[in-house]
Amino acid sequence: MLDKLKIALIAPVWLRVPPVSYGGIEIIVSLLADGLVDRGHDVTQLASGDSLKKGKLVSVYDQPPKDKIGSILPDIFHGASAFDYCGQENFDIIHDHTGFSGVALGAFSATPVLSTMHGEFNDQTKPFYRRFKDAVYFNAISDCQKRSLPELRYVQTVYNTIDFSSYPLKTEKNGYLLFLSRFSPQKGAHLAIETAKRLKKRLILAGKVDKGADTEYFKKNIEPYIDDQQICFLGEVSEERKRELMAGADCFVFPIQWDEPFGLVMLEAMACGTPVVAFNRGAAGEVVSPGHTGYLADTFDEFVDMVGKSDELDAHDCRHWAESQFPIDRMVSGYIDNYMHILRAEGRIAQSLTLA
Amino acid sequence: MLDKLKIALIAPVWLRVPPVSYGGIEIIVSLLADGLVDRGHDVTQLASGDSLKKGKLVSVYDQPPKDKIGSILPDIFHGASAFDYCGQENFDIIHDHTGFSGVALGAFSATPVLSTMHGEFNDQTKPFYRRFKDAVYFNAISDCQKRSLPELRYVQTVYNTIDFSSYPLKTEKNGYLLFLSRFSPQKGAHLAIETAKRLKKRLILAGKVDKGADTEYFKKNIEPYIDDQQICFLGEVSEERKRELMAGADCFVFPIQWDEPFGLVMLEAMACGTPVVAFNRGAAGEVVSPGHTGYLADTFDEFVDMVGKSDELDAHDCRHWAESQFPIDRMVSGYIDNYMHILRAEGRIAQSLTLA
Repeated sequence: MLDKLKIALIAPVWLRVPPVSYGGIEIIVSLLADGLVDRGHDVTQLASGDSLKKGKLVSVYDQPPKDKIGSILPDIFHGASAFDYCGQENFDIIHDHTGFSGVALGAFSATPVLSTMHGEFNDQTKPFYRRFKDAVYFNAISDCQKRSLPELRYVQTVYNTIDFSSYPLKTEKNGYLLFLSRFSPQKGAHLAIETAKRLKKRLILAGKVDKGADTEYFKKNIEPYIDDQQICFLGEVSEERKRELMAGADCFVFPIQWDEPFGLVMLEAMACGTPVVAFNRGAAGEVVSPGHTGYLADTFDEFVDMVGKSDELDAHDCRHWAESQFPIDRMVSGYIDNYMHILRAEGRIAQSLTLA
Repeated sequence: MLDKLKIALIAPVWLRVPPVSYGGIEIIVSLLADGLVDRGHDVTQLASGDSLKKGKLVSVYDQPPKDKIGSILPDIFHGASAFDYCGQENFDIIHDHTGFSGVALGAFSATPVLSTMHGEFNDQTKPFYRRFKDAVYFNAISDCQKRSLPELRYVQTVYNTIDFSSYPLKTEKNGYLLFLSRFSPQKGAHLAIETAKRLKKRLILAGKVDKGADTEYFKKNIEPYIDDQQICFLGEVSEERKRELMAGADCFVFPIQWDEPFGLVMLEAMACGTPVVAFNRGAAGEVVSPGHTGYLADTFDEFVDMVGKSDELDAHDCRHWAESQFPIDRMVSGYIDNYMHILRAEGRIAQSLTLA
């Protein structure tokens, strides 16, 4: 029997853990860290210095270098320092969430590394992951994501989760559709508008418009339709306002035009008792229970019909499904199982050894 | 006696080696690789796939990912693949020119690493280099650069060089001052203009105007003074045109407002027989021979006076000094000496062992 594991969790450098507002990866790392500590494991987070945490925190940046997002120096400074630190401490496992640099640095780590893939695999990133497919163990956040690059050394898929206690269940809805996402063609806000027009329903659009191509998309395909009556645009909203909007919506529309690897926002909507209508791609089929907590459409006509009938679905069913299928405990257990699997595969512990 | 060394040269991923046009680091790597091969060493370049070379070439990108300059994936993909490759081959030494990722990955390399510092040390980068000061051996490209962060583990300074055979010596000048650099406040083009105005001399300005802050600087401080008669602006020019412009100038003006770590362009100008007037900071005092191949000014008034009298200096002296002080052979020997020093320091070879 093994008493506990000594685990390093490497978070991205760009945001606090947990994040102040938006930050899907950082939410997951935070929930996981707390869950592992609560089960008695020895957890060290490698994250920016203002991170809140149970367990130990090791940082090279006192504050997240937000103004440098995407640039090389903070990424490699944080990543290499983290792996250098881990090489000097006697961790059982390093669980990395930084993506490229974690996988690359994992190639030089004597301690086994599990890398959670939080993003999509695409034509730019696939050659990199193929080159380092044996450098670390990978876990996908959905089976769909795994299928898009099956040749990596995967351990079991572990789904994302949310802190359900912070999401209000609301059964009386306020008669609008909600789109809440980044405004990029991939996310399909233009199709949300078309859906609302056809159904003559109110639509609230919320989320960030990034500079560059997304701004062009927004100006051409979204802005002309905003009338502040049927089609309302709120821009970025706070975490609190997001929950209110989700809880009040008749339907959360998710007209994705790409294979979103998970789609945490669907889970958040269901937690608020709001059904989700999505296109049947990416991980939507793994997150939504069709005919029960929402619908999955193959065509746009289907999408519109499904949104139209989604108010027949039950808010309690949505909440219950989300909570029962994606509990935090299941994520934490899933990762612990993966750690143990890796330690056995690496010959670090006997095949028969289990955790206390 | 040691017969030869097995050397890995890791170039930045962003440009071909040698570069098609501008690319100071890539020129140095190319000249060094050729020089090492010519002396019988076993040289492998880790560089983009269209690089021309003597010796062996190993690449992960068939073409430099120019459209992604400064982004994380190509940098870490190239760097980690290079170090992973080097870990599997039996190199005596890895000589890295990539900066951040090379130093960071060098921390995990069993083969000794020499990292040439091609950039400046500043408040953003110093904490990183301090954190990894023992990860690799460092060499500065000037003593000035070394003084700005003295606590690194340095081997001897090795100056940059150029391929003198490609620079024309011209003794009959064409009556203009030349400024050729990026247009940023640090480079001081506005002071070149003020100098030309005071001396009533023609000034040719050439070089790139980067987007963002540099464009603002250019619009405010440079553009209003361009009259296509006394003050001419040519933008970016080809390598061939650069040489013509340098060779024809009465004086190369280098009114730097920062501690430029080397200043290859001063060497290029002198190679064309053109004296250089610079502010006495950065490596200018190590590159220019005052009163002989140019002048070093402490104040702007001095700068103007010195430019005014620089046409008394001899073109042959400029060329001769440049060629005798910064020959390619000296750079190649300097690096070989550093490699040997490192191998002795690491206990890889006996203290008394020398190269054949």
